[in-house]
Amino acid sequence: MLEGLILDSGSNLPLYRQVSDGIARLIQAGTLQSGERLPATRELAASLNLNRTTISAAYALLEEQRLIRGHVGRGSFVALPQANVPGSRVDWENILPRLDISSSSPQSAAISFSTSSPAGDAFPMEQFRRLAKEVIDSPEAREILQLGSPLGYGPLRRYLLTKAREEKIAGPQDDLIVTNGCQQALDLLARVLASHGETVIVEDPVYHGLLRVFERAGAAVVPAPVRTDGVDPEELEALIAKHRPRAVVLTPSFQNPTGASIPGSNRGRILETVQRNGVVLIENDIYGELRYAGESAPPIKRLDESGNVILLRSYSKVSFPGLRVGWVIAPRPVIARLAELKQVSDLHSDQLSQAVLLRFAESGELSLHMERTRATGALRLDAALNACRRFLPPAATFTRPQGGMNLWVELPPPLNARDLLSRAQEHGVDFLPGNYFSVEGGHSRCLRLSFGGLSPDDIDRGIRSLGRAAARELELSRETTFDPAPALV
Amino acid sequence: MLEGLILDSGSNLPLYRQVSDGIARLIQAGTLQSGERLPATRELAASLNLNRTTISAAYALLEEQRLIRGHVGRGSFVALPQANVPGSRVDWENILPRLDISSSSPQSAAISFSTSSPAGDAFPMEQFRRLAKEVIDSPEAREILQLGSPLGYGPLRRYLLTKAREEKIAGPQDDLIVTNGCQQALDLLARVLASHGETVIVEDPVYHGLLRVFERAGAAVVPAPVRTDGVDPEELEALIAKHRPRAVVLTPSFQNPTGASIPGSNRGRILETVQRNGVVLIENDIYGELRYAGESAPPIKRLDESGNVILLRSYSKVSFPGLRVGWVIAPRPVIARLAELKQVSDLHSDQLSQAVLLRFAESGELSLHMERTRATGALRLDAALNACRRFLPPAATFTRPQGGMNLWVELPPPLNARDLLSRAQEHGVDFLPGNYFSVEGGHSRCLRLSFGGLSPDDIDRGIRSLGRAAARELELSRETTFDPAPALV
Repeated sequence: MLEGLILDSGSNLPLYRQVSDGIARLIQAGTLQSGERLPATRELAASLNLNRTTISAAYALLEEQRLIRGHVGRGSFVALPQANVPGSRVDWENILPRLDISSSSPQSAAISFSTSSPAGDAFPMEQFRRLAKEVIDSPEAREILQLGSPLGYGPLRRYLLTKAREEKIAGPQDDLIVTNGCQQALDLLARVLASHGETVIVEDPVYHGLLRVFERAGAAVVPAPVRTDGVDPEELEALIAKHRPRAVVLTPSFQNPTGASIPGSNRGRILETVQRNGVVLIENDIYGELRYAGESAPPIKRLDESGNVILLRSYSKVSFPGLRVGWVIAPRPVIARLAELKQVSDLHSDQLSQAVLLRFAESGELSLHMERTRATGALRLDAALNACRRFLPPAATFTRPQGGMNLWVELPPPLNARDLLSRAQEHGVDFLPGNYFSVEGGHSRCLRLSFGGLSPDDIDRGIRSLGRAAARELELSRETTFDPAPALV
Repeated sequence: MLEGLILDSGSNLPLYRQVSDGIARLIQAGTLQSGERLPATRELAASLNLNRTTISAAYALLEEQRLIRGHVGRGSFVALPQANVPGSRVDWENILPRLDISSSSPQSAAISFSTSSPAGDAFPMEQFRRLAKEVIDSPEAREILQLGSPLGYGPLRRYLLTKAREEKIAGPQDDLIVTNGCQQALDLLARVLASHGETVIVEDPVYHGLLRVFERAGAAVVPAPVRTDGVDPEELEALIAKHRPRAVVLTPSFQNPTGASIPGSNRGRILETVQRNGVVLIENDIYGELRYAGESAPPIKRLDESGNVILLRSYSKVSFPGLRVGWVIAPRPVIARLAELKQVSDLHSDQLSQAVLLRFAESGELSLHMERTRATGALRLDAALNACRRFLPPAATFTRPQGGMNLWVELPPPLNARDLLSRAQEHGVDFLPGNYFSVEGGHSRCLRLSFGGLSPDDIDRGIRSLGRAAARELELSRETTFDPAPALV
C-alpha cells in the first residue's frame, strides 16, 4: 500500500508531514494518478504502524494543498491533475496552493482591540511633514530616487549600525540589513535558515505572522509555552535537548500577544542554553523600547559574544507603521545571505521612507516621540489593567505587561473567545481570539487585547462591554440544560 | 549504493536535481552521516545508469549548498552536521545555504552599460518635489503613515485598476495587487505557482533576477530561445508539448537583455497556444511604454479573455527606480493568493511612495515625463545602434530594439565577453557579459549593453572603446600559437 512512502524516525519533520510530503511526491511523480482513491486512514495507519490521527492530519494537509479531495462516505481521492488541463481555462482554484491565513478584514468596530500598532492620532504629523520636506529638498533626493542596495539606504544603514555599536547590540563581527519591517526580516530568515524542514522553536501563543512565516518556509515548528515570565529557561532547554532545533525565535520584551517579558536573569540563562547547544536565537525586539514600568532588561543580543543571536528591530511600532522599515543585526555571513535573498525578493527597500525615518531619528524627533509614546502608553496600560480588574468575570485571568501594546486574557470555562467575540461585535467591540495565536490549535478561552492604539476612555468602555458580554455568556451557559446521554456500552 | 535514492524518469525535475535532492534528503534524514564518503561519481553513475556529468552536476550543487565537501584526490564527503554542533559557536558558513547570485557590485566605471535603469539626471526632480510635498501636506498623510493593506494603497489601487480597465488590460474577472516593484511580483508568483518543482518556461537569455526567482522557488526552469522577434510561437508550442509547464514567463516588449520584441501577429498565436494548453502566461511588461520607433503591439493580456495571462507592470523603469512600486493584474483568485503571501512576506508595500507616485500619475506629470523619456530614449538608442555599426568588429552581430534600455551583442569567435570585459574595464567601460543572463550557462560570446541611463556622447565613446578592445582581443587571438596536443588513443 503506497509503496515508495518511506518514513524516517530520525527526521525532525513531524510524522504527519512526512506522510503528506511523501504522498505529495508520489502524486507529483505520477505514481498516484489523478482520480485514484487513497487508502482509508485506518488502513494506511495500520500498514505504516502509525496512529490514525497522524494519517488524518496528513490527509487534511494534502486537502488544504488541493492535492487530494475528500468525499464524505467515499474516501479521499487524488485531485484533478496538477498539470493543467489542455483546452480549458486555467483552473486557478485547483492549481493555487491555499495558504492557511485567517482573513484579517479591516475592523469596523467602534472600539477595536485587534491591532497591535500605535494610534494614528498620536503621529507627530507636524514633525513628519517638516522633516520629509527637508529630505525631498535635499541634494540627496536624486540618489534616493535611484536604484539602491539590497542592504539598505547607505546613510540609514550607517546610522543604525553606529547606534547599535554604541548600545553594544552590534559587535565587530556583526553587520546590518534594512528590511520592509520586521515581517520581511522574519520571512527572509525563515527562507534562509529553515526551508528544508529544520525544526524551529517558537513561543506559544505567538504572533500569527511569525508562525505562518516559518510554517510556510517548510520548518517544523515546535511550541514553547509562554509563562508569566515568558519562555522558561528550563523548559526551553528540555525542548532543545529533545528537538535539536536549528533556531529558537523569542520576543523577550512585551511579547505579542501576551505582553509577557523574560526577566534579565533568565535572559542570560537562555543565551547560555542556546550557545551551549549551538542553536540560533532570533530575538524579535520590536517592542523593547516601549517600557512603561519596571526595570529594563538588556536585549539578549547585547549579552551574546558568540554570534548565536540575530536581532530584529523596527520603526513600525515606535513611529509610522505605514513606512515599512525594519532591520536585522547579525553576524556578517548571515547578513550577506539575507542580502542575496533580499535582492531576489524585491531588490531593495523603498528609499524615500528610509531617508525620511533617518531624518526623523537624526533630528532627535524620534526620541521625543518615543518619550511621548511611553507616557501615553503608560496611561493606556493602566486603563487596560484597571478595566480588566473591574469588569472581567472574577475567574478570568490576564497578564500584567510593563510595556508594549498587548495583554492576554484567559476566560473561565465554559466561555470561549470566539463566542464572546460574536457577542462583543454586536456591541461594537472586537479583539482577536486566542486560537489565532496558537501553534497547535489551542487557547480557545484566551484573547488578545491590543490597547496601544486606543484612548484610556475607549479602553475603559471597551473592556466594560467585554465584561458585560462575558457575564451574559456565563449566565447563558448556566441556563443550558443537557439531555443526559445514554451510557455507551 | 545510496539505497533510498530513487529517480523518477517522469518527473519534470532534471536528473541532476533529483540526484542532489535525494542525497540531501538522505543527509537530512541521517542515513548519510556527517563525514561519510560519497561514492565516486563514476561508481554512482554506473549504479544509477546515468551519465557521469549528471552526478558531477549533482555533487557540485550539493557542495554549493554546503551539504558535502569535495577534497581533491580523496572524493566527496558529507559536510559537518547540519544539526548544530553543541558547545560551539554557530558555524554560519556551514548552515547557511549559498545562493547562486553573482555579485553585482556597484559600478565605478566611467561609462557603465551595466544597469537597465533610467539616468538619475533625467529625473523630473522639480515635479517630484512639488508633488511629494502635496502628498505630505494632504489630509491623507495620516492614513498613509498607518498600517495598510497587502493589496496596496487603496487610492493607487483604484487608479491603476480603472486605468487598466480603460486600456482593456483588466477584465471584469481581474483584480490588482501592488508589489515592491516587479521583482517582488515575480517572487510572489514563483512561490505561489511553482514551488513544488513545477516546470516554468523562461526566455533565454533572460533577466538574471527573473531566472533566480524561479530557480530558488524550486521550479524546473526550461529555456525558450529568444530570436530576433523574441520567442518563436512554434518553438514555444513544441516546448509546451514536451514539458507540460505550469507557466511561461515572457517579456514581449523590449526584453531584458536582448531588447527583442514579439510582433503583434505572434502575440495572438502565443496566447492561443497557452490557452489551448491550459498554461499560465506571466507577461512582464515593464518596458512596454518605452517604444521609440515602429508600430506598437498590444500587451498579450489585452487579447486574453480566458484568464490565462498575468500581467506585471511597474513604475521603476519609467519614473524613479528607488521608489519600489510595481503591480500585478490577474484573475481574482490569483490576486487573492498573492495578497495572502504578500501579508506573510512583508505585510504591505510602503505607502508614502505609493501615494507620491499616484500623485505623479494623476497630475499628468508622469505622462509628460514618459514623453520626454521616449524622446531622449530614441536618441540614445540611435547613438547605440550607430556606434555598434561603426565601432564593433565587422563580424559582430547585435539586436535592433525599437525601445527599452538594452541591446544584445554577439562577438565573433574566438572572442569572449568576460575577457573583453576585463580589457574594457581598464578603459573605464563596463557591461554585463552574456552568461550572466544564460539559463544553462551559454552566451559566453554575448554581452548586454544598457544604454538607457547614458548620454548619446557617452554611448558613442563607450562603444568606441569596446570596439577598440574587441579589435585588440582579436589581434591577440591571432598571435597566439598552440602547442599541438598529442592524439588521444
